[in-house]
Amino acid sequence: MHGVKQAMKRVLLVDIGATNTRLAIGWEEGKPVLSGLIQVRTPSSGEALVDLIVEYAGERKGFSIVSIASIGPLDLGKGWILETPNKEIGPYPIVEALQGKLGVPVFLLNDCQAAVWGEYVYGRYRGTRNMVYITLSSGVGAGAIVDGRLLMGRKGNAHEVGHFVVDYKSEAKCGCGGHGHWEAYVGGKNIPRNVKELIEGYSGARTSFYHRLVEGSFTVEELFHQSFIGDPAAKYVVDRIVRVTAAGLSSVIAAYDPEIIVLGGTVFHKGLSRFLNEIINYLEFYSLNKNVFLTVSSYPGREPIIGALAAGIYSVT
Amino acid sequence: MHGVKQAMKRVLLVDIGATNTRLAIGWEEGKPVLSGLIQVRTPSSGEALVDLIVEYAGERKGFSIVSIASIGPLDLGKGWILETPNKEIGPYPIVEALQGKLGVPVFLLNDCQAAVWGEYVYGRYRGTRNMVYITLSSGVGAGAIVDGRLLMGRKGNAHEVGHFVVDYKSEAKCGCGGHGHWEAYVGGKNIPRNVKELIEGYSGARTSFYHRLVEGSFTVEELFHQSFIGDPAAKYVVDRIVRVTAAGLSSVIAAYDPEIIVLGGTVFHKGLSRFLNEIINYLEFYSLNKNVFLTVSSYPGREPIIGALAAGIYSVT
Repeated sequence: MHGVKQAMKRVLLVDIGATNTRLAIGWEEGKPVLSGLIQVRTPSSGEALVDLIVEYAGERKGFSIVSIASIGPLDLGKGWILETPNKEIGPYPIVEALQGKLGVPVFLLNDCQAAVWGEYVYGRYRGTRNMVYITLSSGVGAGAIVDGRLLMGRKGNAHEVGHFVVDYKSEAKCGCGGHGHWEAYVGGKNIPRNVKELIEGYSGARTSFYHRLVEGSFTVEELFHQSFIGDPAAKYVVDRIVRVTAAGLSSVIAAYDPEIIVLGGTVFHKGLSRFLNEIINYLEFYSLNKNVFLTVSSYPGREPIIGALAAGIYSVT
Repeated sequence: MHGVKQAMKRVLLVDIGATNTRLAIGWEEGKPVLSGLIQVRTPSSGEALVDLIVEYAGERKGFSIVSIASIGPLDLGKGWILETPNKEIGPYPIVEALQGKLGVPVFLLNDCQAAVWGEYVYGRYRGTRNMVYITLSSGVGAGAIVDGRLLMGRKGNAHEVGHFVVDYKSEAKCGCGGHGHWEAYVGGKNIPRNVKELIEGYSGARTSFYHRLVEGSFTVEELFHQSFIGDPAAKYVVDRIVRVTAAGLSSVIAAYDPEIIVLGGTVFHKGLSRFLNEIINYLEFYSLNKNVFLTVSSYPGREPIIGALAAGIYSVT
């Protein structure tokens, strides 16, 4: 089913997100175990990030490798975090910097590739040979197992599905500079920024939440909650987000032909998950292949760090 | 660079397209050689297709295998052509039917997967480990080499990029039943069908070609030619087709992270190729990764059949 198992070991785990970074020590005891999990704001430079990890490492002993799941884009060949659209960490040679300071091997993977590897090794549907993990979070990304192999791409970026164009006529700008991308509408930071385009054509009641929407003064949780309890403006916007998500997922299906798509990420867990049925219904409208199983991730909120553990224990194939 | 080379041999080659089917005998003499190439209308049933191939085979001797490049979707595990959106061949067990009648091994590949394999084995940029071939033809499809491996997917359909959603608000219907797909606008048979949506918003001169456009009474060659010589309505529509194509290619780049994208197919060779520079310019607008080399196929008009030869001589990795 998967790669060669390394000798039993403890792994220093790092999950670098656009907003938060998590650290833990992990190992396997029949199932994945995490210890000493902490979460802090992601530092705003590569140097500060390394300082954080080294400080955490100094307080813990007995780990023999470091496994990092990071926002992309990355250059895995060189071990660099490149210019990340949502955060100012890269370009930075994280692998070399950490190996120099800690003196142990350091593995680097894209966070979504880590997450799908975690699902493949430990998840509810482990061993499924064609499986995609989608994060709907600050950004939108994917990790894909195709024919039982983790898809890497030229530099380890064969997963940037958030930059699929879902509306070629759109001027909505993505963090990466491109236009009309899935992530431009559904990325956590982009929802308030591009909500004007999402509410275009709305002619219903001007509720109090409608005014907060057009001003962009709302949280993603509030938006999904207001939609769930029936605010018509919120319903209109969430319907658009659901449609964009179904359109993006249709392109994912066309790209990778998966048996299962696993959904995770903060935007999903904070509210979009309530609309999973609507997403599935819209897939009928958009997708060529209706025969795909959509489900929620096995480790909600811990997808990348469980994936980092899977990559630390089992070599990626 | 590629798979194990089979013993020197002659291969009966079949390229099943939505419109035309080609047959040839092929072998390798330092480079790929085709002999006895014929082209006929694609038969309208699986049985008629097998009759055609068996008749052709009866007139030629000395081939030891059959290699087929076919429109999809396919089920490669079973050797079936499934329900093809653009033609009524499937579902049909072509591999079993042909093996029974000819008594030699029969290989089946999707036409675009064959084409990219042909580029990988024989093309101008052979050996490039991350390479995508795109056909812009009756349909739009891709074959992808990722990390030096031909991407297959669950049943051999990890290539249906024509069904990427490029406009989630669109009602334009694709042959597959989905909406807003790249192929719904750019597939050769869909251009006249969905031209009303492509010309939406045009407010220029009502030229004589404008009236033919809205009536849908034009060929794809005429459309590209009229645009090339300056008809404003044709220019407007071709600009939309170019934008849709650039949007689709941006999603391809996000999905597979290729170094090179090779373009082919009849719609491309019949006129869209004249606008390659415009496509590249629009990629700047849409794409996250600007660092991709766009080029034309090495065997224009013969991409799938050269690919079938490559698959017959070199086992696919």
